[in-house]
Amino acid sequence: MCRWIAYSGPPIYLEQLMVLPKNSLIEQSRDAQKSKSAINADGFGIGWYDQRSEPGLFRDVYPAWNDENLLNVCQQIRARLFFGHVRASTGSAINRANCHPFRHNNHLFMHNGQIGGFETLHRDLAMAIRPEFYPLLQGTTDSEIFFYLALGNGLAEAPERALALTVAQVLSIMAAHEITDPFRLTATLSDGQTIYAIRYANDDFPPSLYYGTDIHSEVSTDLSLEEDQVCLILSEPLDEVASSWAAVPPSSLLVAKNGHVEIKPFNPQY
Amino acid sequence: MCRWIAYSGPPIYLEQLMVLPKNSLIEQSRDAQKSKSAINADGFGIGWYDQRSEPGLFRDVYPAWNDENLLNVCQQIRARLFFGHVRASTGSAINRANCHPFRHNNHLFMHNGQIGGFETLHRDLAMAIRPEFYPLLQGTTDSEIFFYLALGNGLAEAPERALALTVAQVLSIMAAHEITDPFRLTATLSDGQTIYAIRYANDDFPPSLYYGTDIHSEVSTDLSLEEDQVCLILSEPLDEVASSWAAVPPSSLLVAKNGHVEIKPFNPQY
Amino acid sequence: MCRWIAYSGPPIYLEQLMVLPKNSLIEQSRDAQKSKSAINADGFGIGWYDQRSEPGLFRDVYPAWNDENLLNVCQQIRARLFFGHVRASTGSAINRANCHPFRHNNHLFMHNGQIGGFETLHRDLAMAIRPEFYPLLQGTTDSEIFFYLALGNGLAEAPERALALTVAQVLSIMAAHEITDPFRLTATLSDGQTIYAIRYANDDFPPSLYYGTDIHSEVSTDLSLEEDQVCLILSEPLDEVASSWAAVPPSSLLVAKNGHVEIKPFNPQY
Amino acid sequence: MCRWIAYSGPPIYLEQLMVLPKNSLIEQSRDAQKSKSAINADGFGIGWYDQRSEPGLFRDVYPAWNDENLLNVCQQIRARLFFGHVRASTGSAINRANCHPFRHNNHLFMHNGQIGGFETLHRDLAMAIRPEFYPLLQGTTDSEIFFYLALGNGLAEAPERALALTVAQVLSIMAAHEITDPFRLTATLSDGQTIYAIRYANDDFPPSLYYGTDIHSEVSTDLSLEEDQVCLILSEPLDEVASSWAAVPPSSLLVAKNGHVEIKPFNPQY
Repeated sequence: MCRWIAYSGPPIYLEQLMVLPKNSLIEQSRDAQKSKSAINADGFGIGWYDQRSEPGLFRDVYPAWNDENLLNVCQQIRARLFFGHVRASTGSAINRANCHPFRHNNHLFMHNGQIGGFETLHRDLAMAIRPEFYPLLQGTTDSEIFFYLALGNGLAEAPERALALTVAQVLSIMAAHEITDPFRLTATLSDGQTIYAIRYANDDFPPSLYYGTDIHSEVSTDLSLEEDQVCLILSEPLDEVASSWAAVPPSSLLVAKNGHVEIKPFNPQY
Repeated sequence: MCRWIAYSGPPIYLEQLMVLPKNSLIEQSRDAQKSKSAINADGFGIGWYDQRSEPGLFRDVYPAWNDENLLNVCQQIRARLFFGHVRASTGSAINRANCHPFRHNNHLFMHNGQIGGFETLHRDLAMAIRPEFYPLLQGTTDSEIFFYLALGNGLAEAPERALALTVAQVLSIMAAHEITDPFRLTATLSDGQTIYAIRYANDDFPPSLYYGTDIHSEVSTDLSLEEDQVCLILSEPLDEVASSWAAVPPSSLLVAKNGHVEIKPFNPQY
Repeated sequence: MCRWIAYSGPPIYLEQLMVLPKNSLIEQSRDAQKSKSAINADGFGIGWYDQRSEPGLFRDVYPAWNDENLLNVCQQIRARLFFGHVRASTGSAINRANCHPFRHNNHLFMHNGQIGGFETLHRDLAMAIRPEFYPLLQGTTDSEIFFYLALGNGLAEAPERALALTVAQVLSIMAAHEITDPFRLTATLSDGQTIYAIRYANDDFPPSLYYGTDIHSEVSTDLSLEEDQVCLILSEPLDEVASSWAAVPPSSLLVAKNGHVEIKPFNPQY
Repeated sequence: MCRWIAYSGPPIYLEQLMVLPKNSLIEQSRDAQKSKSAINADGFGIGWYDQRSEPGLFRDVYPAWNDENLLNVCQQIRARLFFGHVRASTGSAINRANCHPFRHNNHLFMHNGQIGGFETLHRDLAMAIRPEFYPLLQGTTDSEIFFYLALGNGLAEAPERALALTVAQVLSIMAAHEITDPFRLTATLSDGQTIYAIRYANDDFPPSLYYGTDIHSEVSTDLSLEEDQVCLILSEPLDEVASSWAAVPPSSLLVAKNGHVEIKPFNPQY
């Protein structure tokens, strides 16, 4: 399992969510609270949208709690929309190419979860990637393959539909191989304006996913933020203030933009 | 381009070829003599056969001249057959999975060269890997794909035939995409007993390849080796003693075992 | 805190202690049982004596459970005497120079513990290193400084006396700065023939230290070892077989050679 | 030898000097033009002043031309004053702590050169660091020691005087050890407002140092900069436009602020 966080709103320093909260993402790399794996030390990554058309990307293989470069960059970079991720590998090699987020043009993508029977399905899933995207693969994770499948399914033009198509596509390939292991995931995508997130499983145990309902304490330490401009979607709460966080229901798709969060059912069939 | 070296004979310390000679492989990482790229600093790797059925493998992303672990391991490990490689990336990411040698069961494989139009061919080449081998891919190099194609073509059972089949297969896929860029390579494989090496190009410029004819000076500093037990195949000479080294002719396959080197024509057609 | 292990006896593969046991050193990097810090993921190191006069050394900054090179090297290297260490930093930077073991000529040294008030004492401790040893410092840990202090106190010629002198020296410098924080450590040294280990604290809480009393199950899987030739000293047991392990008493020095373990009082005064 | 660059002026993306010019700093890591060592692949670092009181710092051990994180960060970060450095080690270990720039509060420092007889002098130089600064040492380079010596000599309060005192101090310690090897350096310091740089040797061969006189082509690609606000000090020119660059004379101190460059004699005596 992995842990991730996505923010959209007035520009803040990445450290305000990555470092400073009691259960910050860096803290979750050492001792996650709502994850199968408490330790998520197989690498980390951040992606952030600032003034350029393409987001910045910084990923490395070290435990997040250990890395002075990550700390420095989080202390210095302010962004209006950013992604953070700490990795617990489900088998793939430990290298930067296998760390999240993944980037394609102005899109960032992160994932937590597992495709049941992935070793058996790996080739078919990779072969289902559209030819123009296949050469862009840099690593060997199910996460990255899911991203490129989704891009081929129109992620850049119609993200909600593409996410549904891709989950259905994976279910279909699993069925073709008679895989009974579950398919569970949370995933998030952004084009720099909107954040889309899904929480899904074909059994009753999707990975945890929350969004912020009253995050004033987390992000407004020294800024006077208009809270209704802030969206925060994350694997687990940053602190123990229960009123701040709401669980995203299973089989849901969340769309966050300009501080507004909309939750819709998400239950693709193949 | 990359540089590599393969040794077979009485057990010697790896450092005797990797470190100590004037133009050792580590020296070639900094300043190769007969390579398009003088600098081969995008990682290194060694594989060696000792007492276990599977060879050991040690690969990392640092310039070889920089790495104290590589120096230490070369100083301590003695092997009867070993491979060493320093990498100059032709585009793929810098990570351990993309370093050579590649290992599969008791086989080691190294490569230097480039498949013309690889970016265009990448998907078709990957798809041509037999399904049982595809999940074993850890990286994204043409080198590793070549290895798994060859394994699917019977590399473990009939290596010479498999190497020819694989080169022909690549040529065929290149032709199907009307690629005019050349296909040039040297490559080497071992099963722990025999070393096979090929030097090939579909134009007039295969990468350099040599074998040792009088390597007494290189490997017998403190051992009384029977020279006729030693085989040394390598990208470029370890020193300037011309009588020690012979160039492997273009379009050749070399088979080295028990000190005996045999060179045969190698010019697969598709 | 850190965790370490020292072995002396017939040559065995390092993996038999580093990897295979239920609570192997690699397992302890992820989830130590008797340590303040369950996670020891700030690097690892191995040192081993084989056929050369100087031992080999392989250290890196990654979590030990993550590192394929460590696994490969442990699978291939057999040694008659070796050290293994996994690190939990007490403040110093994460880099190879700050990983254990430390090596000087034919000596290896490892440490677990903390010098009370080290930040205040750092300069005085470094300045107390004899001039001929100071330039050999590669890092900034209290562990490495302790090693070079001990070398200056005659560690190569009279190790038991040098260890006592060095502990006393540290206590003296602590007293000069009126440090009340405790000085607690386990440490081990070898010259390639004998292993010396100390367990000490100037309060009642020295770090854990054990030695193997009946380690037949751990190291004799496929070898017929004469148990009385084997010495095993380690931070915590490798499994739950209570009869296999005995705690080293506090304020003790242990001398292990040729399978024989002698335990003496160790309570230096300054 | 190493290569470095310092910029002060309107905020620009770091890539405009680190990446894009023909002989950018990243290009100099692979093939420097005016350096003893063409290859400067033993690590890199950037430090930059943005909106926080302390500058950001990002350093790593890889060849600069190889590192996607460095590229990404340079593409995204804009700064009004920044330092960049690529390293060729003169003996010290390859790790982040030994990469430049070094940072202390709001100060950044970089260095290129060598203290003659450093191995012999190492301990005395380290001991000359004022006690309050000694614990801040993270590495083992002469560069870092020079920085902390200078801080102890009042670098934060009177930088020009401190630099002179420190060079004199080093010369004095060299003389005490009767070192005849030369002391050659370029070094640069900033407090976030002003850049100070020195070019010095006690023989006739100080390392190269230049400043930009007409850098419109380098930094104004998409910005309308007032050139007279820009200061650029660097080891070697970024391109071959001779009119753009002037050599800093030997034995000089350069003070750059608000686009104004002043050059003064610098020839400390001890």
